[in-house]
Amino acid sequence: MTAPAITAPELEYVFQPRSIAIAGVSAKEHGGFGGIGFVQSLQEVGFRGPIYLIHPTAPAIRGLKCYPSLADIPWDVDYVISSVNARFVPQLLEDCIKKGTVRVLHLFTAGFTETGEAGRAEMERAVVTQAQEAGIRIIGPNCMGLYVPASRLAMMPGQTPEPGPVGMVSQSGMNAGEFVRYATPRGVRCSKVISFGNGADLRAADFFDYLADDPETKVITAYLEGIQDGPRLAAALRRAGRVKPTVILKSGRTEAGSRAASSHTASLAGSLEIFDGLCRQAGVLRVESLDDVVDMAVTFQFVQRLRGPRICVVGGGGGASVMAADDLDAAGLEVPTLLPETQEALAKVTHEAGTSIRNPIDTTSMFEEKGFEATLGPVGDAENIDAILYHTSFGFGFMSRMGDQRQRGERQSEGLARVQEQSGKPVVVAIRPSLTPEALDQANYFQEQCYRRGIATYPSIARAANALSRLLEWQQMQD
Amino acid sequence: MTAPAITAPELEYVFQPRSIAIAGVSAKEHGGFGGIGFVQSLQEVGFRGPIYLIHPTAPAIRGLKCYPSLADIPWDVDYVISSVNARFVPQLLEDCIKKGTVRVLHLFTAGFTETGEAGRAEMERAVVTQAQEAGIRIIGPNCMGLYVPASRLAMMPGQTPEPGPVGMVSQSGMNAGEFVRYATPRGVRCSKVISFGNGADLRAADFFDYLADDPETKVITAYLEGIQDGPRLAAALRRAGRVKPTVILKSGRTEAGSRAASSHTASLAGSLEIFDGLCRQAGVLRVESLDDVVDMAVTFQFVQRLRGPRICVVGGGGGASVMAADDLDAAGLEVPTLLPETQEALAKVTHEAGTSIRNPIDTTSMFEEKGFEATLGPVGDAENIDAILYHTSFGFGFMSRMGDQRQRGERQSEGLARVQEQSGKPVVVAIRPSLTPEALDQANYFQEQCYRRGIATYPSIARAANALSRLLEWQQMQD
Repeated sequence: MTAPAITAPELEYVFQPRSIAIAGVSAKEHGGFGGIGFVQSLQEVGFRGPIYLIHPTAPAIRGLKCYPSLADIPWDVDYVISSVNARFVPQLLEDCIKKGTVRVLHLFTAGFTETGEAGRAEMERAVVTQAQEAGIRIIGPNCMGLYVPASRLAMMPGQTPEPGPVGMVSQSGMNAGEFVRYATPRGVRCSKVISFGNGADLRAADFFDYLADDPETKVITAYLEGIQDGPRLAAALRRAGRVKPTVILKSGRTEAGSRAASSHTASLAGSLEIFDGLCRQAGVLRVESLDDVVDMAVTFQFVQRLRGPRICVVGGGGGASVMAADDLDAAGLEVPTLLPETQEALAKVTHEAGTSIRNPIDTTSMFEEKGFEATLGPVGDAENIDAILYHTSFGFGFMSRMGDQRQRGERQSEGLARVQEQSGKPVVVAIRPSLTPEALDQANYFQEQCYRRGIATYPSIARAANALSRLLEWQQMQD
Repeated sequence: MTAPAITAPELEYVFQPRSIAIAGVSAKEHGGFGGIGFVQSLQEVGFRGPIYLIHPTAPAIRGLKCYPSLADIPWDVDYVISSVNARFVPQLLEDCIKKGTVRVLHLFTAGFTETGEAGRAEMERAVVTQAQEAGIRIIGPNCMGLYVPASRLAMMPGQTPEPGPVGMVSQSGMNAGEFVRYATPRGVRCSKVISFGNGADLRAADFFDYLADDPETKVITAYLEGIQDGPRLAAALRRAGRVKPTVILKSGRTEAGSRAASSHTASLAGSLEIFDGLCRQAGVLRVESLDDVVDMAVTFQFVQRLRGPRICVVGGGGGASVMAADDLDAAGLEVPTLLPETQEALAKVTHEAGTSIRNPIDTTSMFEEKGFEATLGPVGDAENIDAILYHTSFGFGFMSRMGDQRQRGERQSEGLARVQEQSGKPVVVAIRPSLTPEALDQANYFQEQCYRRGIATYPSIARAANALSRLLEWQQMQD
């Protein structure tokens, strides 16, 4: 069964509901997934329209009036979230159709095709057919739905209302949520994040088409477990890959992974070789982990373009410098010796003799207030350098006693941003993992100072190197 | 120049100083590397003997009496730490020789061979020759020295006095410190950690020989940048690899890395191919990053032995399960379908129908108080499973609202330990990175509860998988 082709403008209403009804809300005010989680998420993100709750007996939950059924809501409803048991979904759909104004039914409800039971798969098909005939589109079943900051829609508590350029299409609700959770503190901001689960009606190809045309989306990311409608998906990927940086994580690569994918979203994982070929052909970057997806979202939002592979590594710690050079080389980047004129300029601002200013740079003057920018400046001017990678950490033995870490964070991020601005070369930062709450608080603050000033941050030198290398690879695919 | 061969018992005194003098201590009480850092480190770890400070004018620093010179100290001193400028080292060595009781001179002082200047290298050689003739052994120059919890010696502030089975030999002081910093919160405890820098006198081979014989050391780890005395090092590695699990990170693999290594510890990095062959021959595990070294220290301390590659993955999140299966497969492990009898046992404690109990296991009942152990139990009994990998995270949207996270940590760690105990199979835990100070606090608490009960923890599923796979590889090398 192939869903009817859809044009992008037609999908616009999916992302801009004016009112939402939620069926299957527990009367417990807190805790757990399901209906009440969506209520909390929408309240926290500040959904602007009315939220109607459907509950057989409760008068109100979390301050919102409850109605025994959709029919009892005396106002128009255009978006319905279902958290009821699968066996009540046909009735809920009937109610949606009768209501007349409902345009989207988001089935958080699971227990359909992914169970592997024929009767359940049949029920899913029947629901989709009936909905499509009535002009109601289905998101799901078995998914978390939408996170659209500009529309103040959220799928999980704590998601920021701040919008941005990154779109995401995910077959897994948890991975959509985890993407947002890990990408947000690194400054990634989203246009539309879509978890579509089994994709019984709307599916990956529809959303790729939409995001390719969506003016709010500049970068497209995706997590896919299986391939539905191969030719249509291929066409959508080619289209997306042509117009925007597009990054895809395809899981279920292995036998065990495929089995898990089938249980999870009823997906047939398909051959990775074929998918890989398709991506290359489409100019789409295929990555290996959710961390990679987050790193590439950061890279495409902040770095965007890299002139070449020649990186200058700057940061404290001899061993770290040696390993950084190895990491960059392993990622296919270069760590060229700085030219004599650059070394001379660096020698003027460096206490130590000679050797730690060749690249990698590791000097103690760098840790002094004026030394930091004075060290980065000449590197920004260096002819044989395409980007600067600064690495640091918080809570490290002595550092934590070296003055106010928040001031350090502000001062350094300002310096990094000025060098990026003046040199026209990307300056990226690797912040090694923090081990204590106090250090993490300092690191998070520095990270925010960096991204607010347009600086990309990564949780390790190896990940920064990998991301820059993949950016170059993507650029080459576009040529 | 080859250092005289040394037998292990002879080195014992190096690790058990009775009194320490520190030369080159800044009168500032806080902050920075150097002499004052060692004072603080030794005070924090609770060094039991006297600490004498050498300072030209200050009467006392951090509550410790200062003396203008080593000669002015009216008591025996057997261990001297030098933080003076390199040009004062010959005089300090003269003073040590005159003192008559000094047996070890730890040169934190840098500025010797690693500068690339001939005169500096000559000075280093002269110092070593003179010291050796006087029976004084040198650690360094250009290094952080020793962390020996049982002797209450520390090289950086905040290092725990709790001793344990893991030894470490590191050419880089920062990497020695970073190893301890990252391994300690995961339960790794150390016997002896040695940062030896340029290794002008005592060097890697000496310390490998010592650790191979040391009854307090059960696992040997190392970070090397260069090869000194190839044949002797090879012999020492063969010996260490024969008697104890031995893990080595060799950096300076690349041209840029080699250049950095030469600046850092005057090392000639040498060919990785040759080194790799040597490791294989010696039954030594060569790893790729400092993270790997930490992960293998955790694995050898807590897991020790794995019967085979068949892993059962347990944890929440469909997408995470699919990716976990892929990660394990990529690491060369297996995620076999659970046998019918195991699935039947699991079905009894699971609300949902069928599919998420095949492996990976992903059920909601697992998050309930009794469901957790009831789910793990049958997996522990499963014939076709060699180890259990439980994955979790803290601060995740809904979870953070699901009751007291400390109680959850205690309850789950107890359950995990019981299953490990009763099944005789390793149970390991992957805790995904925490993003907020609050979540990190909860995760750290859970991590500690786990390792206190003998459970290995890792910061990602991929790293846990890699570590278990390397353990199997090491076991095969021993056969």
